[in-house]
Amino acid sequence: MIESPLLTRLVASLQCMPGIGKKSARRIAYQLLQSKRQNARELATVLVEAMDRIGHCQSCRTFSESELCQVCASHKRDRTLLCIVESPADVYAIEEAHYNGLYFVLMGHLSPLDGVGPDELGLDQLEQLLDRESVEEIILATGTTVEGEATAHYISEMVKKRGIRVSRLALGIPMGGDLEYIDSNTLSHALSGRRPVE
Amino acid sequence: MIESPLLTRLVASLQCMPGIGKKSARRIAYQLLQSKRQNARELATVLVEAMDRIGHCQSCRTFSESELCQVCASHKRDRTLLCIVESPADVYAIEEAHYNGLYFVLMGHLSPLDGVGPDELGLDQLEQLLDRESVEEIILATGTTVEGEATAHYISEMVKKRGIRVSRLALGIPMGGDLEYIDSNTLSHALSGRRPVE
Repeated sequence: MIESPLLTRLVASLQCMPGIGKKSARRIAYQLLQSKRQNARELATVLVEAMDRIGHCQSCRTFSESELCQVCASHKRDRTLLCIVESPADVYAIEEAHYNGLYFVLMGHLSPLDGVGPDELGLDQLEQLLDRESVEEIILATGTTVEGEATAHYISEMVKKRGIRVSRLALGIPMGGDLEYIDSNTLSHALSGRRPVE
Repeated sequence: MIESPLLTRLVASLQCMPGIGKKSARRIAYQLLQSKRQNARELATVLVEAMDRIGHCQSCRTFSESELCQVCASHKRDRTLLCIVESPADVYAIEEAHYNGLYFVLMGHLSPLDGVGPDELGLDQLEQLLDRESVEEIILATGTTVEGEATAHYISEMVKKRGIRVSRLALGIPMGGDLEYIDSNTLSHALSGRRPVE
């Protein structure tokens, strides 16, 4: 294949991004070279800066370039409510739903086969957070996978000793969901979790 | 929205890539931070190097970090055949089809409204290439858009004076194409361009 070696390297390198295969990477490389060289240079600068400076919030473990993230540092949040999620992307999703409490980010889920145990999920940090704040309710928002459920169970056992209320996100049909396209598992959760009409 | 300012800048910057919207950019940013920091730093290095060092081949105008691209510098190519395309990505596509001649890359098409005339397409450079090489046939592989057709027409008029044969890529149904899903325009080209069965 005839292609400049540097261009081939660029195409290979672009594929480190999730969802970008060889074809998309080539398209991106050609477009950047053709009309967006300045943007590409800026992207390179921001990439390096972000990878070097963005660490984890000391309190909730989400991505943050300062010691405390904006949520943990804020005085406007409801500090009696704590939502436990698997990843910083989940924090973003829950923020969009107008949640106003604190977070704790596990950065994964329990997965003994991959060597991910309670230590890797920072559960000692979670204990410290609970010592520090006066949390009254914990919302377990880990995934609905087997690992997510196991993680939720483990944490609920761990915090029950403290007498804190623990809840799990409701399972049911999504807004605008068409019944005939919803899997039977979800539908059976929606049935058993049905709520009385006021 | 609660998100670290640097992360917001990274998400914005990633969107300079074609096909990457806000959602994909956020997904990419989080994934790179979560598990691919080293890859992201390497990508930044390659991006800068590529944007700085990749220029255009002096002969055919495709992307190249050396004075002549690998095609123009090669002794194994059929130098009597010249294929004229709109972009370096088209060179890549035609290479895949086992073409073995030379190329000339216009880096666009005639588009007077956008200020793209014969000068911007490097047609003087094309003349020099034709003076230098002993080209016997030119294949016009510009797009099948109105602008692509106009560009092809302009170039064919220009090179006819030299007595060089000029051809255009065949229009017809694609391999594996299902007749009922092919637009009538393509089908009428396929009909008028029909070939006798040997």
